[in-house]
Amino acid sequence: MTNTLLRNCHALVPDERGVPTLVRNQDIVVRGNRIAEVRPTGQPPEAELDVIEAHGMLAMPGLINTHSHVPMVLFRGLAEDVSIERWFNEFIWPLESNLTEELVYWGMLLGLIEMIEGGVTTVADHYFFMDRVARAVEEAGTRAHLGWAVFGSRGLGALEETAAFAERWKGGAGGRITTCMAPHAPYTCDDGFLRASVAHAKRLGVGIHIHASEEMGQTQASLDKREMTPIQVLDDTGVLSVPVIIAHGCGLLPEDTERLSRYRDHVGIAHAPKTYLKLAMGITPIRALRKAGIPVGLATDGAVSNNTLDIFESLRLMAMMQKHEASNPEVLPISEALDIATRGSAAVLGMGDRLGKLAPGYLADIILVDTSGAHWQPPHNLAAGLVYSARASDVQTVMVDGRVVMRDRRLLTIDKTRVLTEVATHMEHLAKRVPGSRIQTYKP
Amino acid sequence: MTNTLLRNCHALVPDERGVPTLVRNQDIVVRGNRIAEVRPTGQPPEAELDVIEAHGMLAMPGLINTHSHVPMVLFRGLAEDVSIERWFNEFIWPLESNLTEELVYWGMLLGLIEMIEGGVTTVADHYFFMDRVARAVEEAGTRAHLGWAVFGSRGLGALEETAAFAERWKGGAGGRITTCMAPHAPYTCDDGFLRASVAHAKRLGVGIHIHASEEMGQTQASLDKREMTPIQVLDDTGVLSVPVIIAHGCGLLPEDTERLSRYRDHVGIAHAPKTYLKLAMGITPIRALRKAGIPVGLATDGAVSNNTLDIFESLRLMAMMQKHEASNPEVLPISEALDIATRGSAAVLGMGDRLGKLAPGYLADIILVDTSGAHWQPPHNLAAGLVYSARASDVQTVMVDGRVVMRDRRLLTIDKTRVLTEVATHMEHLAKRVPGSRIQTYKP
Repeated sequence: MTNTLLRNCHALVPDERGVPTLVRNQDIVVRGNRIAEVRPTGQPPEAELDVIEAHGMLAMPGLINTHSHVPMVLFRGLAEDVSIERWFNEFIWPLESNLTEELVYWGMLLGLIEMIEGGVTTVADHYFFMDRVARAVEEAGTRAHLGWAVFGSRGLGALEETAAFAERWKGGAGGRITTCMAPHAPYTCDDGFLRASVAHAKRLGVGIHIHASEEMGQTQASLDKREMTPIQVLDDTGVLSVPVIIAHGCGLLPEDTERLSRYRDHVGIAHAPKTYLKLAMGITPIRALRKAGIPVGLATDGAVSNNTLDIFESLRLMAMMQKHEASNPEVLPISEALDIATRGSAAVLGMGDRLGKLAPGYLADIILVDTSGAHWQPPHNLAAGLVYSARASDVQTVMVDGRVVMRDRRLLTIDKTRVLTEVATHMEHLAKRVPGSRIQTYKP
Repeated sequence: MTNTLLRNCHALVPDERGVPTLVRNQDIVVRGNRIAEVRPTGQPPEAELDVIEAHGMLAMPGLINTHSHVPMVLFRGLAEDVSIERWFNEFIWPLESNLTEELVYWGMLLGLIEMIEGGVTTVADHYFFMDRVARAVEEAGTRAHLGWAVFGSRGLGALEETAAFAERWKGGAGGRITTCMAPHAPYTCDDGFLRASVAHAKRLGVGIHIHASEEMGQTQASLDKREMTPIQVLDDTGVLSVPVIIAHGCGLLPEDTERLSRYRDHVGIAHAPKTYLKLAMGITPIRALRKAGIPVGLATDGAVSNNTLDIFESLRLMAMMQKHEASNPEVLPISEALDIATRGSAAVLGMGDRLGKLAPGYLADIILVDTSGAHWQPPHNLAAGLVYSARASDVQTVMVDGRVVMRDRRLLTIDKTRVLTEVATHMEHLAKRVPGSRIQTYKP
């Protein structure tokens, strides 16, 4: 195991209240897969440390994507400017019938390339053929929280297979992979299916990753059909009794927030604002959630709505949209935005004790962001730069679990050319939509 | 004068209705400062042409920034998370008392670097010490529409000096510079001052670039004070009788749109959505404006609100915010977004007959965007890529007026190191706020 010194960077470290704050000219010492020390630069490096010069770089915790369907990068750009019903029924679910294990593997690697290049070190992925997804993560050297997505219509046998995946890969890739159950949503899984998911989760000691209250229309449909909001359904079926990631919460009512606050030590909301804007889904009530102490984290969702996997963009959109919706530019200031992007996202994944902080004892998932570009100059305010100027392309070096997976923008674990070639080969097949062929129907 | 062939690019060219459309595998022939031909690739290049290989690149008209205060990059990050009143009175207008001619020059060059690197070939700039701004543009080799900003409080003598600038630089830098009058806003210039601005504009044969109806509070204040909206004031004082760029129009009432439609052949709206979100100013009613035939173009505004000068980001935010505000994802589809970014912006500057199209006879302002990055793959839909995946850092090569000013991301006209060094030298001075020292007071 290598030990590393990141020398003379500006570092986003927790202040006395734990809120991330920019401190200039720091050295970060990594031993094994943990951060050992963050100290002012100047001290000669210990002999056993590999030194990475990081002058002019900004070090921050690796970005966390709390909700995605990464292999959907394969369908990027194929469903534009359409309603959410058409998006599902005429595009996504027909397109997904083109998927194979093999394609999911290459799609996952393509998405991992984009995420590593953009500083994302951990992703909570919710998709199909997850053994291949896990294999890709293992090879890429990144961290992931994986759930095999399943619709109620597939039956309890299929659910059991997804539980077997969760068991198989729990603690996989040297601990970099954690798993969960991933029933799709209350509107595609009936109560019995949700209860069975909870039973599996409890048996395996894992949580649940699920879509719920994605937009207000779904909440209304649920109220109309059964006089319960989707969050009430999650509560009623026991889902909220285990650790849960809920995407996306644009349809949360105040009573839902109150209900969620009872479970806030193990339930969080994944927020993917670019998807909400593109599909006109409304916006997650982040201020209310934060006030109620419910963790909120950043996400991209899949690239067919997003169309990228860029957490810097999610960060910026989150802060700007909360200001816009509140008609108040003082809402969600820079320090809070960075808090959500780091500690918030880690908490949503239930990993707040080991991820999301540059602090001794935390896992060494660290990115170096180049602040020398014209769009950062002059560097009066580096924290503002991170939220409002930084681009995915500014990320220079990425470390996960103490190991460098990208150095000076060169990927060290993935053969990029090979991946792009494989994806290109299947491009035509991926774009076909066979009439009547779809994996599911959207009808909340 | 060199003649150039951009070989085998995908090109954003006008379809039969003039709407920009992606056509694959094209050659673009440039002779002098004009586009001579756009044709399918394959034909051997004429002997006198310099060939630039553009395989895998996407060629589009150089981006146009229809409203900025470019040298404000000097204050980037210094006014965050504050109300619009505090933004002006406690930050911007005190900070601007630190400016000198010399600093404006270096600030302009810094902003030009950021814009060229992000594919912006033309900017409508509205600022102070404009002779130095013009000099920087002349050296950078880009195109600009320049107005010397002036407050009514400075008096008619000062207005005359700004008119002298407009006269001095009209048609400057070999025709790359056009000029205008730039009274700040109806809330900082009284009617007499606006009328005098119009008289100067008519005398010089130029237009006016002005802030108006920036947000609904200003419109309400104007109605309260004088029972006229800011747009009525512009009409009443004759401003709308000359070519006008209006920033930002988030406070437009339906009656204003109706009024503006009467002048739509020479009046346009500069739309800078990132500023509106950050300062919670509301959003320009673009659908209503477009329906009324009023040109809308993209802008960044200054980097103290934006915090960058990234037109790709403005493009994306514009499309997404219109969908969000309309609660309809079908609103402002990709083709319309690209139409606004190209023809729309050119029309706002009154240059629709010579800018904003890759077509024979148009000025050769062309950018090559690299589509090989992971975030573009697979390239099912390059037009969607331009709106929703492209980053400023994807711009590889930039041509203005037939001359290459950036090649493979290497700047050919500006000494970047020198500019960054000069700006860094003055950083501390720039950030000082002397109590009581401010160039103007915000009180709409």
